[in-house]
Amino acid sequence: MAGPGRVEFREAVDADLPGILSLLADDAVALARGGYAAGATPQVVEAFAAIQRDPNNLLLVGEQGGDVVAVLQMTLIPGLSRGGMRRALVEAVRVRQDLRSFGIGAALMQHAIVRARQEGCGLMQLTSDKQRTRAHDFYVRLGFVASHEGMKLALD
Amino acid sequence: MAGPGRVEFREAVDADLPGILSLLADDAVALARGGYAAGATPQVVEAFAAIQRDPNNLLLVGEQGGDVVAVLQMTLIPGLSRGGMRRALVEAVRVRQDLRSFGIGAALMQHAIVRARQEGCGLMQLTSDKQRTRAHDFYVRLGFVASHEGMKLALD
Repeated sequence: MAGPGRVEFREAVDADLPGILSLLADDAVALARGGYAAGATPQVVEAFAAIQRDPNNLLLVGEQGGDVVAVLQMTLIPGLSRGGMRRALVEAVRVRQDLRSFGIGAALMQHAIVRARQEGCGLMQLTSDKQRTRAHDFYVRLGFVASHEGMKLALD
Repeated sequence: MAGPGRVEFREAVDADLPGILSLLADDAVALARGGYAAGATPQVVEAFAAIQRDPNNLLLVGEQGGDVVAVLQMTLIPGLSRGGMRRALVEAVRVRQDLRSFGIGAALMQHAIVRARQEGCGLMQLTSDKQRTRAHDFYVRLGFVASHEGMKLALD
């Protein structure tokens, strides 16, 4: 992998939460959407704890020199379709702005793909905001096919 | 709701599995995709058990006169984005072919939306194959916005 310095990929630990939240907040689409809490509010801390205690939810991070520089969440989902196939849903993929285009995101995704296969998943899926055209090209290079409409309904 | 007879919506029980599998198999897109097991293979039975024991995975069915006539799966997902918001992912929405266009699917989705709100979810999301143009209109009528690309990667 190209890039300024070695990045290690692993599951998140408690100490990573502030760094993860900084990555999630530092995003133009997320900021435009509003309702964004960069700080560790009680609701965010509880969500982190819920992820950490659920074997079907994984936070994978890329760490460089003690800093969290990339993150994604992967949810392992049992299903009856396709002969009882498990699938892996990926959400909240982020790489620190100044470290983009060095292959860190692709390496994090490959780490997630290996893990999803180990977990017995036959499919990985994600939705990407139609505004994020560079992200779509990124996922297509990884082998993803934009075969579906990604539809959202706000419940508030 | 219009339609031939009253439909009751509830969580699936063990006895519903054969009826659910028949609904999942009776679908042109699924059949074209291949790898479809209508029967309760050991892998499918294990997937059903995994769903039933996981509080974050729900199979919701519509029952009419003892028959399962509609089904969907809903996965409740904790997340750090949007202030620690939970989201509900919906998969495998099906209504029996001869009972379509009577509002059963919309009623099942409304049942799921009520349940997702009760579970504290701020967003419901799904992906729908781009071939299923009638399904997209259906979801838009329910208030969904096709704001995202739905991307899939086969891991086999």
